[in-house]
Formats: sequence, C-alpha cells, structure tokens
Amino acid sequence: MNDLSFERRAARAASLSDGQPLYRQLADHYRRAIGNGALRAGDRMPSMRAFMQRHGVSLATATESYRVLERAALIEARPRSGYFVRMPPAALPAALEPDPAQLPGEAQFVGIHSAISTLVSKFQRFPDALNLGGATACPELYPTDALRQAAMRALRREPTLLTSAGPDLGDPALRAVIARRALDGGIEIGADEIIMTHGGIEAVNLALRAVTQPGDTVAVESPCFFGLLQVLESLGLRALEIPASPSTGLAIDALSFALQHHRGIKAVVVVPNLQNPLGSVMPDAHKAALVELCSHAGVALIEDDPYRELVDDEPAPKSLKAWDTDGTVIHCTSFNKTLAPGMRIGWINGGRWHPRVRMLKFAQSRHNQQLSQVVLAGFLETGAYARHLQRLRDSLRCQRERMALSIAAAFPEGTRFTPPRGGLFFWIELPRGLSSAALFDAALDDGIRIMPGTVFSNTGRFDHFIRLSCPSTDLDLLDDAARRVGRLARRMSGHRGADA
Amino acid sequence: MNDLSFERRAARAASLSDGQPLYRQLADHYRRAIGNGALRAGDRMPSMRAFMQRHGVSLATATESYRVLERAALIEARPRSGYFVRMPPAALPAALEPDPAQLPGEAQFVGIHSAISTLVSKFQRFPDALNLGGATACPELYPTDALRQAAMRALRREPTLLTSAGPDLGDPALRAVIARRALDGGIEIGADEIIMTHGGIEAVNLALRAVTQPGDTVAVESPCFFGLLQVLESLGLRALEIPASPSTGLAIDALSFALQHHRGIKAVVVVPNLQNPLGSVMPDAHKAALVELCSHAGVALIEDDPYRELVDDEPAPKSLKAWDTDGTVIHCTSFNKTLAPGMRIGWINGGRWHPRVRMLKFAQSRHNQQLSQVVLAGFLETGAYARHLQRLRDSLRCQRERMALSIAAAFPEGTRFTPPRGGLFFWIELPRGLSSAALFDAALDDGIRIMPGTVFSNTGRFDHFIRLSCPSTDLDLLDDAARRVGRLARRMSGHRGADA
Repeated sequence: MNDLSFERRAARAASLSDGQPLYRQLADHYRRAIGNGALRAGDRMPSMRAFMQRHGVSLATATESYRVLERAALIEARPRSGYFVRMPPAALPAALEPDPAQLPGEAQFVGIHSAISTLVSKFQRFPDALNLGGATACPELYPTDALRQAAMRALRREPTLLTSAGPDLGDPALRAVIARRALDGGIEIGADEIIMTHGGIEAVNLALRAVTQPGDTVAVESPCFFGLLQVLESLGLRALEIPASPSTGLAIDALSFALQHHRGIKAVVVVPNLQNPLGSVMPDAHKAALVELCSHAGVALIEDDPYRELVDDEPAPKSLKAWDTDGTVIHCTSFNKTLAPGMRIGWINGGRWHPRVRMLKFAQSRHNQQLSQVVLAGFLETGAYARHLQRLRDSLRCQRERMALSIAAAFPEGTRFTPPRGGLFFWIELPRGLSSAALFDAALDDGIRIMPGTVFSNTGRFDHFIRLSCPSTDLDLLDDAARRVGRLARRMSGHRGADA
Repeated sequence: MNDLSFERRAARAASLSDGQPLYRQLADHYRRAIGNGALRAGDRMPSMRAFMQRHGVSLATATESYRVLERAALIEARPRSGYFVRMPPAALPAALEPDPAQLPGEAQFVGIHSAISTLVSKFQRFPDALNLGGATACPELYPTDALRQAAMRALRREPTLLTSAGPDLGDPALRAVIARRALDGGIEIGADEIIMTHGGIEAVNLALRAVTQPGDTVAVESPCFFGLLQVLESLGLRALEIPASPSTGLAIDALSFALQHHRGIKAVVVVPNLQNPLGSVMPDAHKAALVELCSHAGVALIEDDPYRELVDDEPAPKSLKAWDTDGTVIHCTSFNKTLAPGMRIGWINGGRWHPRVRMLKFAQSRHNQQLSQVVLAGFLETGAYARHLQRLRDSLRCQRERMALSIAAAFPEGTRFTPPRGGLFFWIELPRGLSSAALFDAALDDGIRIMPGTVFSNTGRFDHFIRLSCPSTDLDLLDDAARRVGRLARRMSGHRGADA
C-alpha cells in the first residue's frame, strides 16, 4: 500500500497544472490501484479521516472521491464498517482480433434500407422502451439550461434571427470559434474552410457525393455504423468491408491489400476515435500510416469524427486530419454526441474537394438555420464547453464501469467485449449461434431497445453481436436493464443457473 | 362616375362576409375604376368628406383607403387641392408568349455551378448592396416578434428542446397542422404522409433522387429557378427545357410533344403558382391537364409550390397535387417565402414514391431540428398565420404596383414585362442585344443586386432578361433603385433623353 501515499504539494501542483479537480485525481489513483491489483476485492479502503490526512485534503474532497469510486461500482459501503473494494466481476475475455488476411467480398448493401426500416417500425411500436440502442446520452448530461438561456439571449439580441436568411456556409462567428477549437484535434484550417451542415450525417453524404459516382466502391470499417451503410446504398455505392480491431480500429494492412487489389476504390470512410460500434481509438502511428496510404493511393480519406472529445485520454487523441498534408482527408464531425443532440449541427472540411463540397451543400440544402448556430457560437466561445465535456466524460466513465460489471455478471458464458476507450456504447460478442435479431425482439418485448449486430455489416459476420449503450445517469436503471438483456441472452443460449 | 356609388349595407355585408377590411375593399374598388378607365389620369378624387358620405364610412377608413392607393402610386396628393389620379406610366408591352413548337435541345447544365459561383463571389464583394435579386421579402414583412415570442415560450415549456433528439420525419403536431392547412390548396393527405425538410430545396433534391438515376432527363420550365438547374447538375441529370408562358406557365402542348419524343424523361419539375422567375399562375384546366398527362406517361410530376399563398387571388389557387389521383405528383413546399426565411423549414409528400423519399431523407440528414418546428406548429395553429399572409400580400401588392410604375418609367424602349400575379419579382425582357450580365455588373457597382437572366436557363435565350424583386416596404427606396437600374439599362442600350 506504499504506493498510495500522496504528496500534498505534488497533488496541489498537479491540480494546478492539468486543471483536473483533486477529487478526480485521487479517484483515478485508487482506480489504478484496484486495476493493477495493488488493492484487491474485499480490502478495506482508508477511513475518511485517514484518507484526509494521507492526502492532505478536505472532507468534501475525500467524500467526492469515494462517491466517484462508488458510482463506478469499484468500492462499496458496508454499514458501520466503512468502504471496501468490491468483488471483481466474473472476468469476460476481450473481443477477438479480426483476421486481416480475410477480406470480405464487395457488397452493395441493397438490403440495409429494409433492415433499418424493420428496426424503425419496431421501435415505433414500443415508443416507451428504454433506449440502449442509441448513440447519444440522456438530456441531463447535456448543458440544457445554459443552451436554453443562450437561445433566449440570442433571440432578444437579434430579433430577426428567425425571419432573415442566414449567411451561406454558416455563421461566421461560429466557424471562427470552431476553427480555433479544431486546433485541439491537430487541425489547422481557417474559418472559411469550414461549412456548417445538418448534423454529421449530411457532412458524410456531401463528402461521399463529392468524391464518388454511383457504382464506385468505398472501403469501410467492418463492423461500421449502419447509417453509413445506408448512405452508401442510397447513393448507389458499393461497400468493401475492411476488418477493424476492437482496440486499434481499421486494419491498415488489410486496407493496403485492398487498395492494391481493387482499383475501383474511390474513398475510405473511417471513424478514427471511438469507432462506432467498436469503441476503438486508432493509435497515432496507425493514423499517420492511414493518411499516408490514402494519399499515396490518391484515394479520398473521409474521416467521421464526432466522438473524439468523448475519449477518456488526456490529452484527447488527434483527428486523422492532423496528419493531412495534401488535402487527402475530408473531415466530418458534429455536436450531436458531445453537446446538443437536438440542434443537428455538424461541419465539414472538404480537403482538396472543398469547393465541390461547398457547391453540393448549397445545391442540397442551402445554409443551416441561424439561431442554433448563434447559440452554439456563444457557448463555444466561453470555457463552459470544456467544463461540460469534462463532466460528461466523468459521468460516462462511471456509467460504462457500472455497465461493464453488469454485462460481465449477467451475460452468458462465451460473451466477449473489449471495454471502449470512452463514449457510451459496448460492442458485445454473444456466444456463436445466438441471434442478435432474436435478442433484439425479446429485449423490445421486455421494454428495452438494443441494436442488433445485423445492421453493422452486410456480411453476416456480426449477426451474433449487439451494441449496447449506457446513456443514463441512473446507474441502477442501467444495471437492471443490462441484467435483463443478459438474462434473455442466457435463456436463448440455453444457459441455466442463478442470475448474478 | 356612377359606378363608384357604394351601398352602405352592401359594403358592410361584404365586409362581414369575406373578412376583408372595408378600407381595402374601397381601395380595390377605386383601383379597378382606375384600371378600367372609369377614372383617368388627372381626375380629381372625391374629397375626404365626399368619400365618407358616399360610402358611409369613418374618416379613419377613408384615410386608410387613400393611403393604400397613394402607396401604390395610383393617386397623388396635390397641396391644397386634394387627391388626383396619377399620370399613367409609359405603357410597357406585355412579355412575349413563347413558341411552343420550338423545343430547346437537351442540355446537361454543366456550366451552371460556375455561373452561380461567379455571381455569389461578386455578391460577396458587395455585401451591402441593396438586394433586388432575392426571392424573400424584408424581415419587417414577416411576423418577427410573434415567432420570437413563440420560440421563447417553447424553450420555457420544453427545456430539453435543444438537447434531445426530435422525432424522425418531423414534429407530429406540426405535421398535423400542416395536413389541415394543406386542404386549402386542395391537398388531402394525412400527417404521416408529410416529411419535414431543410427548406424547399432539400425537398426538391429528395424528390429528384427518389425518381431518377444519374444520366436521366428531367423536363423543366424555361426559364426556371437557377437553384433547380444547379440541383440537376449536382445529381448528374440532364435538363430538357419546355417553354413556359409569362401568364399561364408551362406550355402543356410542348411538354406533351416532348414526352412523346424523349422516352428518357423520368420527371417533370413545375412551379405551378407564381412560377420563378415568370410570376405566372397555371389555370386550373392546365393543372388538371398536366397531372393527367404525367400520370398517363408514367412520369413523376414534381411540384415546387412555395409561392401559392402569395398569389393575390381570392381564394388562392390550388396546388397540382389537388388533381392527383394515383400518386403521380410529388409535392414540395416551404415556409421560407411566406413566413420565416431564417427557419429553413420545408416539407414534402412523395406521392407513390413516399417510402423512398422517407428513406432518402433519413439517410441524407435525419430529422430536422426540433425548436423551429415547435415554434412553427404553435404559430400555424392560431389565426395569426392567415392574418399575416393577408398583410404580406397587401404590402407586396403595393410594392409591386410602385415598382411596376418605376420600371415602366425608367427602362429603355423595347423593355417588356407581364405583371406577376403576386409575390415580389418581375421578369423583365430588355431590348435585344442588351446583356443582363453586363447590367448585373453595372448595377452591383451602383450598389444594387439584381439577378441576370443568364442563370435561369442554359439555352442563352434569356441572356437579355433580368429578375428584379421588390422586397422592401420602403417604396421610395424601391422606386429609386428601379430607376437607377433602368437608367443603367438605358445607357447600355444607347438611349438618350431625360430620366423619367
């Protein structure tokens, strides 16, 4: 336990230097100790008084640190005995790495529309189901009141916001602050190289329209976001699925092989940070290699990057665009996941295709509505956005940790997953032979919406996977829901035995 | 002058029956008298006292009636003498009817993007130019304050509007009230047959994407809205320009001929009410024949109908969709021109292609932002929208009448135009040989933005036309601007002589 000693001055200095609150640093410290085995299940945690003395902190800080650990289900309070490290969950193996040599064939995804329509119509029959199938957090995790107040201020200050047309390409003030913030992701572009879009999905549509013709082939990650497969189908494009690792994302070697053997590939679409559904983050070396590969092959690299700021790492990882030297990378992102799902605001930098993207955006939907942009610009200009992101990441981490325990405890033997590096969803491999479509139906009957793996690929390789989100701050609700889904999966896979 | 006598009871009864204010009925009465020659230039109008006695109205009503006529430049006050009918403008001939037998060849419009880019970049160099090139009125003509208050109420009542995702396809309450209002245009559809879009332009994009493949041919009116030509180019479609009459719109015979001789036509795009730029309104018989023709030919009829409620007629004309019996008509419209240019809200009914339109909308940009929809739903549910439209039409009529006089007085001999049936723009034929592109440049140098005819067709047939709008309620400003443009045109066409 020696390594738990903490220098008061060092902590204070660290607190000042990296801006993280002390309680969080201390919680992280104990989290690591539990993670690396320095503290074991059943170990008694220091009493509050001992904790305060050891770390030279106030009772408020000590309490807050323990609250964080408790919410994450790492420690538990026992009446009149203090806090103890919790029993570890039944260990679940990590997800399997894909075989990069095994390239799925080219598919046209002519079935994805109907698969998605079927899902959507089922959703509509159960409108009140708990939604663990989405990619956004609950409204409480977003700065609802601050944005609302900002909207009211904007309406008072600029009375004609709703009745006069806004500027082409988007609000200049918003684009300026986005350009400044993009530097955090390693992206150096000017405000006039940014076009505001209707969410990230319009950005991806414009990117694909700018660089392809119907009939062209586009390389995508396997598995990948079902919305992307639908965009490809709607544009008459063929998809070539490239294996992706649950920890490091797109398999560069496999893509390299594909580029050599499929001359018709016009674009590669990648979610480099918190890949959807894998939750993987590409290492810097992979990012650099990927940009170099596409640049060399003369293929557009479309980066869909809406989750970067939800990655837990400090500092946050960079975007692929940070390695772009010749305009190969088209950068697409949005504020749907990080700030305001109701505002539908995204943006795009089209790399060397930027003029064509600009034309397509004008022809497709003109400029975005102005009010939301003014609200967003005001919010991003203050420090409120950074503080919000910190809170959001903290909360999502607790939610993920609790959800991971619940999944590990409740799902049948043979279940695998790799904990994601941030965000809110888990990509779970069920025992082979268990149908995610059947589990989806059973869960919906039980009042819970999940996403079946069937819509994340057209190869059928992920039909026994599900994507499960932890959007809520109500950890008991998440725990209960995950256990119910796990119980259904166990029943389907023929397992018996007591529920954990 | 006998016909000017007015029965007090009849007027009162009429006022009650059709809801038009008395002052407006009286102003219309005198407007007709001036129009049909019963009152001639220089005739003295009744004194206020005589007017009040003759029509049995108050001083306020009499004053308001004269104010309307004066704003329309139909009468003028002479100091200490009373009101007189104004001198008529130099008569301008109506626009020429097209030759329906002369079908322009098929064009691919590969040049429209660059033509529009050139215009836009010139606009940007003169951001403060008076905009007579647009299609929306000034913000004062829209219910800015009511919408702003509605937005604030919505934000107070539904705090998470900005931070929670809205329903797919659009707000149900909004779609319900739109379905009810659509009955006025003769359209009988349910709320679930309406999809909200980002303005009318996204609706037209979705319609074309639903029924065509790249390389297909689409029949359009000639001239037509440059935005449509750009959408066609961006989607890789070929345009076949069908002549259109300045008074009755699309030439049905010419379309019929084209459908017989071009088997590859997949869709026809028409603006039936206040065609842009012609300002024509198709007669009911033409509308019925057009729908029948397309239905028979199995070709999608895409109706772009954002101006219907700006037509001066009472009752307003019907949409093409009113004659649709088999889903041939795809109806597209928006509130950009009639209510709130800043809100970017349109909608679409896809006729028999509705499921495909729904899929394309989901794939292209998901649902619209929710706040604007809630605001709009609240506004449309009250009588405020009808009252607003009446005020807007009244004001636009005054603006058009004043602008028509200014154009007639100032433009060179050989200029032609047919007064539009509502709305705010004039399609003006300049003397042959006069370049609208050169006039555009000269006007912009003089601080006025106009739209050159070059971008309304790819045939070159309208290179000596301009579209001139009257967006402002400041009639003297409009008069001055129109006269300045007219003076430039006169100078270019080699005319001399005093400015009218």
